[in-house]
Amino acid sequence: MTKNKRPIAVFDSGLGGLTAVRELKRILPFEDIVYFGDTARIPYGTRSEEVIKRFSVQDLKFVLSHSPKAVLVACGTISSVALDYIKGMCPVPISGVVIPTATKAVNVTKNKKILILGTGTTIRSNSYKKIIASLDKSIQTIARACPMFVPMIENGHIDDNVADAIIDDTLKDVRDYHADTVILGCTHYPLIADRLKDYLGDVFVVNSGLEGAIDLAKNIDTESSQTPGKLDLYVSDDTGDFKKMAEYFLQYECSGLNVTDIDNF
Amino acid sequence: MTKNKRPIAVFDSGLGGLTAVRELKRILPFEDIVYFGDTARIPYGTRSEEVIKRFSVQDLKFVLSHSPKAVLVACGTISSVALDYIKGMCPVPISGVVIPTATKAVNVTKNKKILILGTGTTIRSNSYKKIIASLDKSIQTIARACPMFVPMIENGHIDDNVADAIIDDTLKDVRDYHADTVILGCTHYPLIADRLKDYLGDVFVVNSGLEGAIDLAKNIDTESSQTPGKLDLYVSDDTGDFKKMAEYFLQYECSGLNVTDIDNF
Repeated sequence: MTKNKRPIAVFDSGLGGLTAVRELKRILPFEDIVYFGDTARIPYGTRSEEVIKRFSVQDLKFVLSHSPKAVLVACGTISSVALDYIKGMCPVPISGVVIPTATKAVNVTKNKKILILGTGTTIRSNSYKKIIASLDKSIQTIARACPMFVPMIENGHIDDNVADAIIDDTLKDVRDYHADTVILGCTHYPLIADRLKDYLGDVFVVNSGLEGAIDLAKNIDTESSQTPGKLDLYVSDDTGDFKKMAEYFLQYECSGLNVTDIDNF
Repeated sequence: MTKNKRPIAVFDSGLGGLTAVRELKRILPFEDIVYFGDTARIPYGTRSEEVIKRFSVQDLKFVLSHSPKAVLVACGTISSVALDYIKGMCPVPISGVVIPTATKAVNVTKNKKILILGTGTTIRSNSYKKIIASLDKSIQTIARACPMFVPMIENGHIDDNVADAIIDDTLKDVRDYHADTVILGCTHYPLIADRLKDYLGDVFVVNSGLEGAIDLAKNIDTESSQTPGKLDLYVSDDTGDFKKMAEYFLQYECSGLNVTDIDNF
């Protein structure tokens, strides 16, 4: 296999990272992609750093077994608390979502107020806050953990009374902060981007999956052929609706679905 | 250690099974209890039977390392899809929650209509329906998967707009079924028993943790001393709020909290 023919590997705690794959396929349509979602152990965002590090090592080992040319950690939680830990174990370029997403937010905010949304573990880690402060000390940030967003999105509550109640409960006390820029610090959240815009008013939404994909594309040797890249999907558990769920996040039909036992990695 | 001095072991996918421990401590106050909650891999109710079986074997091995006199599987999902599989690996009496809970519901229903609430995997398994049909063919049942209940309860949404919206969305189309008996087929659900009664009207609520505890108590040699039993709590992950969460489910203060790596079992 030549260097260029090797796939790009993408992994996440579940299928949310497919929102990054969607962007990656748009930016790099000729690249092969191998995706792994740890559906047997999702969610990661409610777990401790120690457990997330342990799980991420296995996830990385699995995707490395496919000899990728680069790896995208399409998960805000892993990028926040485990990326530095697993970097040294990865012989090819590896990107996360936090640095490119924070950088984009810093570049677009005009009123210098950024609202950061993420899982409990991401918000507790202060990962986005630290990067933003290192880039521009004059920017104010407010962060909000959104522990109900992942189960809400995974269960299809996007535009109904359940989503309304959860979005209001989670964000009502940050609405008046009037940030002009909102970081979707978890790759599940792009599916509710429009709902968040409706609720928060005139905000610029920074999609961490998109920013991670753009960042990875900058750092790799791209495929020179003009054959559309294929997408191989792997998960650690399938309750029967894997294909339907994958298409929900990807927003197009897909094939090449596989289940793997992550405990063996 | 004499036979009677050995503890009772209780395990669950997380801390919901502590609602069964609460009942067990009321029924058998002098027994020592060892509890394990697999908080690193909760929830189980969204996963496949295969993965739940694999996780349950590890959970059982962990609690057996404490030489219990009996084991209570305080989880509706494991009891539904993995109890028969792990039974043969357990050298001491092991009880689940499905059979005693279904039996109780059959005994109390007057209008012979039972509503079964549980996780996605529990409901897909038809575990409660099968036992009820085997006990009394004239009873009608309707089952409803409640995938948002566990994250809702774990995040403290018991009596607020979020709980209102989720309960209504989940149960609005079974309200008119007018079951007089409702099975809380997951050990998290007793925390919303009053909310479900408010929503469903005049129903008898069958608490699977309580029925499991009563069933286990029937089948063991009880402790003869009059010293209050101690409770040792183990989880596979702690994000810092383990004690607070345990007390939320137990509804009293507790000590003896430990974290263990379940992957080693």
